[in-house]
Amino acid sequence: MAAIKRRKITVVGGGFTGTTTALMAAQKELGDVVLVDIPDNEDPTKGKALDMLEAGPVQGFDSNITGTSDYADTAGSDVVVITAGIPRKPGMSRDDLISTNAGIMRSVTKEIVAHSPDCFIIVLTNPVDAMTYAVYQESGFPKERVIGQSGVLDTARFNTFIAKELNVSVEDVRGFVLGGHGDDMVPMLRYSSAGGIPVEKLISKDRLQEIVDRTRKGGGEIVGLLGSGSAYYAPAASIVQMVEAIVKDKKRILPAIAYLEGEYGYSDMYLGVPTVIGGSGIEKVLQIDLTEEEKNQLDKSADSVKKVMQSL
Amino acid sequence: MAAIKRRKITVVGGGFTGTTTALMAAQKELGDVVLVDIPDNEDPTKGKALDMLEAGPVQGFDSNITGTSDYADTAGSDVVVITAGIPRKPGMSRDDLISTNAGIMRSVTKEIVAHSPDCFIIVLTNPVDAMTYAVYQESGFPKERVIGQSGVLDTARFNTFIAKELNVSVEDVRGFVLGGHGDDMVPMLRYSSAGGIPVEKLISKDRLQEIVDRTRKGGGEIVGLLGSGSAYYAPAASIVQMVEAIVKDKKRILPAIAYLEGEYGYSDMYLGVPTVIGGSGIEKVLQIDLTEEEKNQLDKSADSVKKVMQSL
Amino acid sequence: MAAIKRRKITVVGGGFTGTTTALMAAQKELGDVVLVDIPDNEDPTKGKALDMLEAGPVQGFDSNITGTSDYADTAGSDVVVITAGIPRKPGMSRDDLISTNAGIMRSVTKEIVAHSPDCFIIVLTNPVDAMTYAVYQESGFPKERVIGQSGVLDTARFNTFIAKELNVSVEDVRGFVLGGHGDDMVPMLRYSSAGGIPVEKLISKDRLQEIVDRTRKGGGEIVGLLGSGSAYYAPAASIVQMVEAIVKDKKRILPAIAYLEGEYGYSDMYLGVPTVIGGSGIEKVLQIDLTEEEKNQLDKSADSVKKVMQSL
Amino acid sequence: MAAIKRRKITVVGGGFTGTTTALMAAQKELGDVVLVDIPDNEDPTKGKALDMLEAGPVQGFDSNITGTSDYADTAGSDVVVITAGIPRKPGMSRDDLISTNAGIMRSVTKEIVAHSPDCFIIVLTNPVDAMTYAVYQESGFPKERVIGQSGVLDTARFNTFIAKELNVSVEDVRGFVLGGHGDDMVPMLRYSSAGGIPVEKLISKDRLQEIVDRTRKGGGEIVGLLGSGSAYYAPAASIVQMVEAIVKDKKRILPAIAYLEGEYGYSDMYLGVPTVIGGSGIEKVLQIDLTEEEKNQLDKSADSVKKVMQSL
Repeated sequence: MAAIKRRKITVVGGGFTGTTTALMAAQKELGDVVLVDIPDNEDPTKGKALDMLEAGPVQGFDSNITGTSDYADTAGSDVVVITAGIPRKPGMSRDDLISTNAGIMRSVTKEIVAHSPDCFIIVLTNPVDAMTYAVYQESGFPKERVIGQSGVLDTARFNTFIAKELNVSVEDVRGFVLGGHGDDMVPMLRYSSAGGIPVEKLISKDRLQEIVDRTRKGGGEIVGLLGSGSAYYAPAASIVQMVEAIVKDKKRILPAIAYLEGEYGYSDMYLGVPTVIGGSGIEKVLQIDLTEEEKNQLDKSADSVKKVMQSL
Repeated sequence: MAAIKRRKITVVGGGFTGTTTALMAAQKELGDVVLVDIPDNEDPTKGKALDMLEAGPVQGFDSNITGTSDYADTAGSDVVVITAGIPRKPGMSRDDLISTNAGIMRSVTKEIVAHSPDCFIIVLTNPVDAMTYAVYQESGFPKERVIGQSGVLDTARFNTFIAKELNVSVEDVRGFVLGGHGDDMVPMLRYSSAGGIPVEKLISKDRLQEIVDRTRKGGGEIVGLLGSGSAYYAPAASIVQMVEAIVKDKKRILPAIAYLEGEYGYSDMYLGVPTVIGGSGIEKVLQIDLTEEEKNQLDKSADSVKKVMQSL
Repeated sequence: MAAIKRRKITVVGGGFTGTTTALMAAQKELGDVVLVDIPDNEDPTKGKALDMLEAGPVQGFDSNITGTSDYADTAGSDVVVITAGIPRKPGMSRDDLISTNAGIMRSVTKEIVAHSPDCFIIVLTNPVDAMTYAVYQESGFPKERVIGQSGVLDTARFNTFIAKELNVSVEDVRGFVLGGHGDDMVPMLRYSSAGGIPVEKLISKDRLQEIVDRTRKGGGEIVGLLGSGSAYYAPAASIVQMVEAIVKDKKRILPAIAYLEGEYGYSDMYLGVPTVIGGSGIEKVLQIDLTEEEKNQLDKSADSVKKVMQSL
Repeated sequence: MAAIKRRKITVVGGGFTGTTTALMAAQKELGDVVLVDIPDNEDPTKGKALDMLEAGPVQGFDSNITGTSDYADTAGSDVVVITAGIPRKPGMSRDDLISTNAGIMRSVTKEIVAHSPDCFIIVLTNPVDAMTYAVYQESGFPKERVIGQSGVLDTARFNTFIAKELNVSVEDVRGFVLGGHGDDMVPMLRYSSAGGIPVEKLISKDRLQEIVDRTRKGGGEIVGLLGSGSAYYAPAASIVQMVEAIVKDKKRILPAIAYLEGEYGYSDMYLGVPTVIGGSGIEKVLQIDLTEEEKNQLDKSADSVKKVMQSL
């Protein structure tokens, strides 16, 4: 019999980012959510899932949310988000994280692929470009179905700072970034606007540079303030926007970490570029002309990614 | 005793645009809505208000919606939207509408001011630049509190066509227009983008010109298809976005018909310009550099407005 | 390749109810919407669809909405809503509508089944119990996939009146009805509550009876006020709630016109009963104990439906 | 000049519940949010506020969120939520918390009253009945403006369990509780329904009793699973529902901890009862008839509250 099934979204990693991702996906009723963590952390994961589920009657969503350590519960997921991995500590470089997190990526990916062979995978774990590559290789999935998140978050931070600077609604600010996450971010100021007006016409060059610098170090700023742990609200929101673009086949133009085969002159690597994301995952990589300075910055960013990849 | 009161929004004109505006404001729970029309049309107005109210339990909004012909029921409104006036018929120029509608503006404004001396007024009636001016004069309100709608709608149409052309989500398209409504619209293509990328980089010049032309004639396209009557869904949505910007003090950057005192070289007239709209109405007119061609087009647009104003 | 496709919803009938249904489905991003009407009405239908589509950029939805007279455009729909039919005029009994509308149901159903053999069909056309039966027969679909709307709307009206009476949020009022639409409605007052408290404890018996009577005649009240035409906002909202329950597999408990095979003592007919609606359509008919008076009223309601069915 | 200002909501306590409350209030754009904590915790509070703010561009809300330890930043708040206090540890009785938390209530209330003399206060800190009383006394506010939360949360948990048991949407389940939080909760099963049908008709007596027991211990269940810390998602959602009822003057019927002056036979104490909450705070206490058993349970609940109050 014909039947319509709810979408199913798995979030790997029951830490703050994973949990908040689960909440935000459920709030939008994108589908039922399975939050999966290691056996040692199963009870807290179940506890968080139950607590979120109990918010449903009040918030007006009826997505199911469950916690588990058994990947069998994730079977048939449409989208799987990977937030697992050890977090960045204050002062720690992203590269220090690599060997541990690459191992986690491989074992997690094995499980995902075994139970959801047709899913889309979104990776958040840092260093995200390299981790996405590791997941891509391990999964054997076509490139469209393995995506990394970084540009949505970097843009969100940039937009926040610009909106504050101008005292206007953040709804009307649209930044544009390329390249790697954080320090390796390539800000495209000439394509960044408020109310359609290029920010370069509204804010002085020096002040804009300060805002770019603050954006680059946006993750570190939160880490520094929190004292322990790192940002999770904006990262989770960023992932959920990508999940929504896939699940609703929205064909959003979003910056994403995509596998490149010649685009922008790079091959066989993952790098942050503008993409169209819809029901087939990354449906297109948008290629834009770069100035020499922008191209140099992007090269630097790509070199940085490659170095991490080599250490894999 | 301290008490928080719901915002109150009055919509003048119980036709399709007015009714749809009432619905969309209620759906967003921006406040209670009063729909007011002439005594001859009171019963249908009450009927539509009741029908919308009965949609509330199902749609999950609990704004009150009432129909009336008595302006006493509008007392103490925070925002008043004027949609009243005779509609544009197929083949009718906007200028033909002027004398009738100007008279309607004056009598309506008298009632509004008498019952809601502190409100903000948003005008939709065509020809909207001149009608907004008539309301401004009659009201005696400061310029910030009398606003005309046209650019939000023109932009919405432009964005729709661009999104279709590129097969991307309309959420990622941001057009930019200046000047008058429809034929007098000044499209700012270099400030219009998809995913932050200027549309001029994504769409050929000829095709873009076709899209601009279609946008200019966007109202007429709907009129032609409908056979009788004119567009009301997108116009209502556009007004409600402006109402929301005021009621929630959002400081949105929106194109709006604002009273100019020297901005862009014009004075003592209403013209479509980029503005910041918040809890004080039009809080700022944003001045941007124009190319010679853009300035020429804007002058033409302003001339057209002035001609209508002179016939007032 | 794995790909996630948007849901597709077809609305048959481009009148006010059909159009408003299309808008509300699009606003909730339940899927892309196709609005289909007869060839003579194709242009206005296209016009309304385009006008709604142009509201998307402002309202923040990016569902596609198209108007057509060609059922080929509806191919592969997940849910089809039938609003087509001649409307009820002031003073006209619902039975007068029957022969014309039954013919329309049959021809429309043929087209639907030919192009969307796996869809769910929701019928709104009056007299709705008989029209749903006609669609069921013509379609050859299993009973779960052909559903009529009436109870959601009757309940919405009842809830609205109760909320006004008590001056409380309509979100906290929950009415309960059985049986036919309008005059044949069987109000279940002992199962109707405000904030969980039975309305019989909060409102006097006489006043409650007045509210029941007003609910029964709720459609006529709107018709009388409008002068021409009938209600469409609350009916459209009611349909969309049912569409959402199916498309999101929500398993909502909603009153619906369901095919009965012995439930409540009736067989081979459609009647308004409490149901669970989810991704398989009507997943369950809930049977509740009735008092003798309630059973008598339901019998009367069923007799009324049967009479209409016999004239088919 | 007339101007519309955003509502302002202060959340006292930057722990998980306070932070999640801030997020959910911002997501609904109920107003700008100030998150206040002690000076030692100021940086983490600022970090969480910034992280949430940076989620705004992606989630589509533009409420401002700030972290502070200076109550001057909370000046002019419309609603203040108190989540501060030491949390309940596994195995700890709620009474053990009392002396510490009462002291915190008093010092926090002094600050709130000094900076927002016209605000409404909602208390979440446990033991919540006694803590709300302490805030009431310290504030000198009229009773309508000091409210405690417990019933919305207990009901949310009950509804979740009932929805799971019946495999229906939680949107259609409506539980009803009286009395104290947790162990002292008085479940009103005859007023609890699914789709309007009393749960007693749908679920066996024994199974219902198990669900009631699980609801009573709902907080402990989460505490036990988490290992450290307690629930915060559903509690935050519950508070935000109350904030929304006030800020939008909704007149919701919600269970709340209200000051009683004779209602249900109690005086000069705070107890969980059904109330109408709107723009004037608790606008009404709804009195319903109780069976002898229900009255006995409520007496026991009241005794328990009084004992805690005496130890104040």
